[in-house]
This record gives sequence, structure tokens and C-alpha cells, in this order.
Amino acid sequence: MSSETTFKCWAAKTPGFTLEPFEYVPRPLGDNDIEIKVTCCGICGSDLHTISGEWGTPDLPVVVGHEIVGEVVKKGNSVSTLELGDLVGVGAQVYACGQPDCNACSRGFDPHCSKRVYTYNDKYVDGGKAYGGYSEGVRVDEHYAFRIPKEISPAEAAPLMCAGTTVFTPMLSHGFKKGDRVGVIGIGGLGHLALQFASKLGCVVTAFSHSSNKRQECLDFGAHNFVDTHDPEALKKCERSLDYLIITSNSSSNDYEQFGSWVDFHGKIILLAAPPAKISLAPNFFISTEVFLGGSLIGGIKQIKETLAFAAKHNIRPVIQKVPMSECNRGVQMVHTGNVRYRVVLEN
Amino acid sequence: MSSETTFKCWAAKTPGFTLEPFEYVPRPLGDNDIEIKVTCCGICGSDLHTISGEWGTPDLPVVVGHEIVGEVVKKGNSVSTLELGDLVGVGAQVYACGQPDCNACSRGFDPHCSKRVYTYNDKYVDGGKAYGGYSEGVRVDEHYAFRIPKEISPAEAAPLMCAGTTVFTPMLSHGFKKGDRVGVIGIGGLGHLALQFASKLGCVVTAFSHSSNKRQECLDFGAHNFVDTHDPEALKKCERSLDYLIITSNSSSNDYEQFGSWVDFHGKIILLAAPPAKISLAPNFFISTEVFLGGSLIGGIKQIKETLAFAAKHNIRPVIQKVPMSECNRGVQMVHTGNVRYRVVLEN
Repeated sequence: MSSETTFKCWAAKTPGFTLEPFEYVPRPLGDNDIEIKVTCCGICGSDLHTISGEWGTPDLPVVVGHEIVGEVVKKGNSVSTLELGDLVGVGAQVYACGQPDCNACSRGFDPHCSKRVYTYNDKYVDGGKAYGGYSEGVRVDEHYAFRIPKEISPAEAAPLMCAGTTVFTPMLSHGFKKGDRVGVIGIGGLGHLALQFASKLGCVVTAFSHSSNKRQECLDFGAHNFVDTHDPEALKKCERSLDYLIITSNSSSNDYEQFGSWVDFHGKIILLAAPPAKISLAPNFFISTEVFLGGSLIGGIKQIKETLAFAAKHNIRPVIQKVPMSECNRGVQMVHTGNVRYRVVLEN
Repeated sequence: MSSETTFKCWAAKTPGFTLEPFEYVPRPLGDNDIEIKVTCCGICGSDLHTISGEWGTPDLPVVVGHEIVGEVVKKGNSVSTLELGDLVGVGAQVYACGQPDCNACSRGFDPHCSKRVYTYNDKYVDGGKAYGGYSEGVRVDEHYAFRIPKEISPAEAAPLMCAGTTVFTPMLSHGFKKGDRVGVIGIGGLGHLALQFASKLGCVVTAFSHSSNKRQECLDFGAHNFVDTHDPEALKKCERSLDYLIITSNSSSNDYEQFGSWVDFHGKIILLAAPPAKISLAPNFFISTEVFLGGSLIGGIKQIKETLAFAAKHNIRPVIQKVPMSECNRGVQMVHTGNVRYRVVLEN
């Protein structure tokens, strides 16, 4: 790093898809904070939603990136869980209060802590801005930096920090088990990991995609069935065939009524993507199908640890395309145009 | 009854809230059918949605009523479960195929059988119309006529056949248990029974109503808390306070985003009412709250039996107002104007 107190990074200075070089002075290293020298950072769809302004105008300049892997290079006085030199990953959250009187943290719902700080486009209670991983360094609370298992390479670990834990968390919270019939719609950064996690849990997995040329890859990821969403006959056969349908598709043409028709009585649709269009359904849709619709945010501390351990044990890895951090704009374009299989990882 | 083959009853002949005398020749008594001499019939909200045309123009003339209690007066050659003279109840469904190769019936989801026949405004596969309980008689499949426990009077049993089993069924399917925090919004025909069932299951029950004068009655029904939905301070305190929120309110001004705020992470909103307005929510509502929204249709054979047994055992009774069948139009008006506590039961 160029100085003790400045991080060189890439920022969106206006809403859009262009990142420019930027420097900032990081917040003071708190007693429980660590500083990470960033090795690599995955590009998540959220990064693009944020810089483009699709989720509202971000707090500019904004440095995105929340699939961070790097080395611990500094630690605060009270840091007890990590050592200098540790290879760690950081996901979409960098702080929660962790207090026993917090209704969220005390029950393992730390992503919902009222003092939660997201990795970027967010502020700490002291007003300090949170900057993400398209950078040479980041400072975060030690509880949100997770040791990367030795079996997993840094670049392959990066997408597990957000995409991986985002898909695995609802599988844990809803208790996905052997034999459960799981559909995944949208086979991209999240979807290709969802297929692997669900398959390794012993579920019977169906991949739904409009890209029929992803069929073989989906089967390789562990899917037992592939359904081309352009094929009405194939879709008709899906009626009531799933216990869970995981939606990672950001398409504004998502047809939730059709999605619901594939799910069995008392089954669940689990939204992991947040397309801008509202979901509009008649009450009778819910009553007549008895399908439940909900979502899952991100993984908390417990779930991220379980994600990394499960991926290490079961050889679950993202399929990645590496791009130098200096070419992050090219990486962003790859994701923006859908020209990536399946995750871009920026490398310093 | 006036003749072997004609039932005198009350029908809507045009969409609206007016019922007129009507007579029809019932379908031939099938081998598995019974004929019931109707003692009484509850007035359900669905009856009004149907006759008014709010749920679409009904198949006129339509005879509504699906909270029927009466005496078995004829039985088909193969009827094995009921005897002449038995006091039985009929709910919202009068037929399902019951076959082992039926994806619904074979798994206890008989209300979703593709051959399902609702008690009224529906047709059998042979084209015969189904007529409801505002009548001197009905003919139904023996499997959809349920012996009324001796502890329960006919008029009090009637509302258990639809309202009762509709609220108890999701409690069974979702496994409501002691200590679960259950909210009920809309304290009417369904709601006042939901409070009783949930309370007797050992749940911690909160009644939500805009009628603050229902407070004491709600507490008497077993609610532990009463929240006046006109009191913003009281509503604020409900944030994340429920495991389940049962919605029986048909109001088109239902604010599902607010409802969601009362439900805890991974909790469920269970719709039992089908107001005509669509539910429109941003995907981010589901992701940020992790609340699941779904519904429940009606009870199947198993659930109706369990409803009657549980109500008998735990002394759960609807609060009813009796009206002679001949004054059914007055009864309909009482329900239409909300001037009923809590269920009108028409008596022959």
C-alpha cells in the first residue's frame, strides 16, 4: 500500500457503470478492527445495482465489492480471533453490535442488527463511510473477517463470501435435507453455486434457465434436471414438482405466478434477487396454491462459517474468470452484459 | 321436504345481496352419496363474495351456504361410514376423487384434488351443479359429511365446518405449538375462532382489530393481547413480535408491508381472506424482512375431523346469532354491514 493511511481503490463518482481511480483515508483502526491487504474481490450483481443507481442514488463516491479475500496486515489491540498473515474473507457485512440485548444479534440474526453496517454504501454509527473491496485494502471488524479454509484458493473463496453464503443460508435456515426437491432459476453467479450446495445436501435439483447451452454445465454442477424456460411443454411438467424454488433471476419479467405453479403445496419460493419491479399477486394466488413466498438477505457470522466449511468439505467451488483489478471496468462490463461464466474475480 | 326429488332453497338469481325462493331437483343419489336434511347453515363471507359477483359472476341461480349441519336421511348403496339419523356437518367441499394415483388426495391435500367439487357454485365432472346449504336439503359424498361430536350443538357446529377448519388447518400444517407468538387480524367469523384455537394450542395470542370495543371479547376468546389498529404507538411495539400472523381481514386497504413489520425473521403471514385487491410488494420487502407470505385454502377430510375433535375437547365454540332460514336476506345484510358478532347461523 502506498501509505499508512491511504487506500488506492476504484470508485463510482457518478451513477453508471464507470469506475475511476480513487483514494481515501480509512477510518481509524478500532480495537476490534483488522486491516486487510486485498488479494482479490468478486463482482456481485449488487455492485452493479449500486453503482448504476438502480437501488437508489448511492452515497458517492462509492467503492463497491463485498466478496473480498486478502491478508490480515494490521490488527487492533483487542483482536483475539485473527493473526497477522491470516488469509481471510469478508462478505456483504462488516459490522453488527453483537450485544446480548440486541433482538437480532442475540438470536443469530446479525444481518438484521439495527447497527448493521454493510461493506459499502453504508455508514458506521460514528458517521464513517464503509468502502468495499475494489481496493488495495479494507478495514473491518474482526468478527466479519473469516479464515479461508486451506483447501480453497483465494480467488475461488471470494465468491463464497457473498454469492455462496447467500444461497447456502436459506438452505440452512429452512433445513433443506436429502430428497427435498429444489429448483433454482437464474443460473449465474448465485445460481451455479446454489445447484452445487443443494446437490451436496442430497437434494433433487432442477436448474431453470433460458440459456439452453448451460444444460451440461448445470448437470456438472450437480443438477439432476435442466429445464429450458423457453420450452412450454417442459415447464408444464414442472407443475407442483418442487419443495423449494430459489430465485436468483433479476429479470423484471419474472413471472411469479408461473414460478408458484412449479412449487408443491406448502412449498416455498425463496427470493435472493431484488429486481426493481414490484411483485403483484392476487391474495387468491397464495390461498389457492398454499405456496409461501419469502426471501433471504445475506449470511450472518454463523452461516458464513458454515458456508466455507461445507464448501471446503464437499469441494464446492465457483467457476470464475479472473480479471486484473486495474481492469475492473472490463469486469463490470462482463457482468453488465451477462458475458461471464459464472463469476468475475478482480485480482490485485 | 316437499317431495322426494325437489329441494326448496334460497338462491341468488342475479348478482347482488338478494336471495329468492328457489327449487331444484337434486342430482341422483350416488352409491357413495348421502342426503342431508339441513338443520342449520352458517353464513360465511364467501357466500357474500359469491352472490355479489365480487369473485366473478357466479353460475346463476346460485344457492350458497357451506357451513351445513343436518341429519342423514338417505344413503347410497355403498355408504359405509354413516347411518340414517346421524347428525353431520358439511364444509366448503363436497367431493374429491380420493384415488391413490391422485397427486393431491394421495397425500392428504384433497382440497386441491383436480376433481374437487366445492359445495356451491361448482360442477361435478358429470356436469351436475353443486348447490349449498341455504336449503332444506343437500346431497353430498359421504366422505365430506362429518359426524358432529355430541358436545357441540348443531348451530354451534355449523361455523366450525368452514370458519373453524379454515383457521385451524394452517395451525396444523405449520405445526403451531405452545409458546408460538400468533397474531390474528380481523376479528370476525374466522378471527374469533382463530383466537380460541391458537390459545388452546398454548400459543401467545395477539388480536388486532380496528374495533376497540372488541377488546374484552378478544381476551375472553383467549387472546393475551389486544392491539387497536388505530393506535400507532401500540402498532409500533408490535415490530418483529410474531411468529405467525393470520389475516382474516377482507379489507382492500390491508397494508401488507405493515403486517410484515410485525412478524419476526422467518415468520409467516398466513392469508385466509381473499380481498379483491392485488398484493403488491417489492422483492426487497421479502429479502429484508425474511418474512414468508402465503395462504391456506380450506380444511381437507383429515383437518375437518381434527377441527371438530379439538373443538369438542377444548370447548371451542363460535359465538353465533341465529336467524330463521326464511329470513336469510336479513342474515345476509347483517354480515354485509358487519353487524354481527360473530357468525350468523340460519335455522330451518
